[in-house]
Amino acid sequence: MKKEHMDRIDAAVKAVVAKKHINHFYFVACGGSQAFMMPARYIMDMETAIPSSIYTSNEFIHTAPKALGPDSVVITCSHSGNTPETVKAAEFARGKGALTIAVSNLVDSPLWSAAEYQLHYDWDKQSDFSDLNKGILFTFIFKLLNALEPCRKYEKAIEAVDHVGECIRKARDLYAPEMAGWAKKYKREPLIYTMGSGTTYGEAYSFAICLLMEMQWINSSCIHSGEYFHGPFEVTDFDVPFIIIKSNGPTRPLDERAYNFCSKYSEKIMLIDENRFDMSGIDEEVRPYFGSVVSGSVLRSLADYLAYERGHELSVRRYMWKMEY
Amino acid sequence: MKKEHMDRIDAAVKAVVAKKHINHFYFVACGGSQAFMMPARYIMDMETAIPSSIYTSNEFIHTAPKALGPDSVVITCSHSGNTPETVKAAEFARGKGALTIAVSNLVDSPLWSAAEYQLHYDWDKQSDFSDLNKGILFTFIFKLLNALEPCRKYEKAIEAVDHVGECIRKARDLYAPEMAGWAKKYKREPLIYTMGSGTTYGEAYSFAICLLMEMQWINSSCIHSGEYFHGPFEVTDFDVPFIIIKSNGPTRPLDERAYNFCSKYSEKIMLIDENRFDMSGIDEEVRPYFGSVVSGSVLRSLADYLAYERGHELSVRRYMWKMEY
Repeated sequence: MKKEHMDRIDAAVKAVVAKKHINHFYFVACGGSQAFMMPARYIMDMETAIPSSIYTSNEFIHTAPKALGPDSVVITCSHSGNTPETVKAAEFARGKGALTIAVSNLVDSPLWSAAEYQLHYDWDKQSDFSDLNKGILFTFIFKLLNALEPCRKYEKAIEAVDHVGECIRKARDLYAPEMAGWAKKYKREPLIYTMGSGTTYGEAYSFAICLLMEMQWINSSCIHSGEYFHGPFEVTDFDVPFIIIKSNGPTRPLDERAYNFCSKYSEKIMLIDENRFDMSGIDEEVRPYFGSVVSGSVLRSLADYLAYERGHELSVRRYMWKMEY
Repeated sequence: MKKEHMDRIDAAVKAVVAKKHINHFYFVACGGSQAFMMPARYIMDMETAIPSSIYTSNEFIHTAPKALGPDSVVITCSHSGNTPETVKAAEFARGKGALTIAVSNLVDSPLWSAAEYQLHYDWDKQSDFSDLNKGILFTFIFKLLNALEPCRKYEKAIEAVDHVGECIRKARDLYAPEMAGWAKKYKREPLIYTMGSGTTYGEAYSFAICLLMEMQWINSSCIHSGEYFHGPFEVTDFDVPFIIIKSNGPTRPLDERAYNFCSKYSEKIMLIDENRFDMSGIDEEVRPYFGSVVSGSVLRSLADYLAYERGHELSVRRYMWKMEY
């Protein structure tokens, strides 16, 4: 990781730990940026007794959670740093006296200026994973956890960030033939469901709303695998496509149960199994934290194959950035 | 409200308030029962500085939030009292020393026995709203808020529960022609999106996963109106149907923005506007808490019209309760 990035992470961690009392961690962002922070919120929920929650920015502002105040830490994210609701959310939180941290690719953006602390990430194909958005956020989360309650496990997780890039490359190679084949076969589907849980839910959500709906105009919905049997499973049929991710974390039994049922009735399943990933270089104890990051990247390659087969580039939009809304 | 129900509510409130310190309220249930508790969680978030969160039962068990312990209050719900994951969640929480409360229609069910306190509700068409699930839960929430921090507003909300039934009847009459017409016109749609926010998000979620997917085998997804512009809106087109609910609560601006855009491009929108409901009998100050309950009932009548037009009764299932899963 670049020194510039690490210095910013260390400054933000120091500021959080300097607080005498923290009542709540709020993660606040929109769409893909919200999805990106979901695993972080999930890990905080598992690892620290300080509660945390996640909001889409405009709901956060209008709901105005009563616990929000000087004891709170609010972590916002916008890739461009220009998402108006997220900028307002950071300003709103800062106005309430909360410690505000922004995660962004753009230096000196409105969000950057709205927050007290900034975590900066790179965004290009040449960058190492550790300098990209997930590398930055995961390093911050584990450095924070380690500062709040020092533990060898968190140190291992921080070290793991340097090895995720290699795991991703291997997983993409491993899944390339299946992804290419599935995309070719199901390129004409008008609707594709995604399903996941735990840290991977955010990746399934992001794939549904950003990759399929936004970038491919394919109807979609992200089903939590724990919710599948409580309604959604009744739409399952031989011709209904599902992308299912089996987590390598504690919620794997939920995913396995959903997959076992769904694969009996649907003939169009793409399964991503995080236990198939080669995670060497990452200590076994902390692999469950990183499975979703690798899945997310495999999903991203599936989107590339779909876009190619459909002749519909991922950059095409009809509304976004093209008009007022 | 029947005395039996009120006595149980009072006992549960007393038990919560007797705790010296409450660190967290956990709402835990599956599918429709989870959706049913979403507004309660939302209201707690707005009204008390004690944080709260909501989980699908199996994720709660496998995640094992670190803050869960003797200072926690865990509110579970299962209509039948037999949902295995929710029964386990109550047992798990009780094992951690948390105060456990179960909301259920069935007395002496496994969930009933698993929890320390029970809120019982009736479930038949003759019952007054106050004795049904939402009447019971809302009364509990406002009695609890009033016990934690006495306030005239909460008393008004408790009083309001007696008037919701009448508001529902009027709203169903008001919307009957539009609902019947929409259901007739769009009965052959293979996919219908729902959209809402704030207290109404749970109703939109419940309609998508339980009424449309489970009971009508219509593909669906619930889109949070604050998330619509961050991906999902790109699927909007003249022939894509959306059911949009404009809340009468603080997140109404989100719904209005989504509706204003969506209605420019989709020709198949069913709008439910909570500001059109006749809420007389309910004090203006507390109406925003109850808009979603009325919307939920209007949505339920839309499901009846859809079921009639499609010749597909709401009770039909192909998997649920018919096999092991």
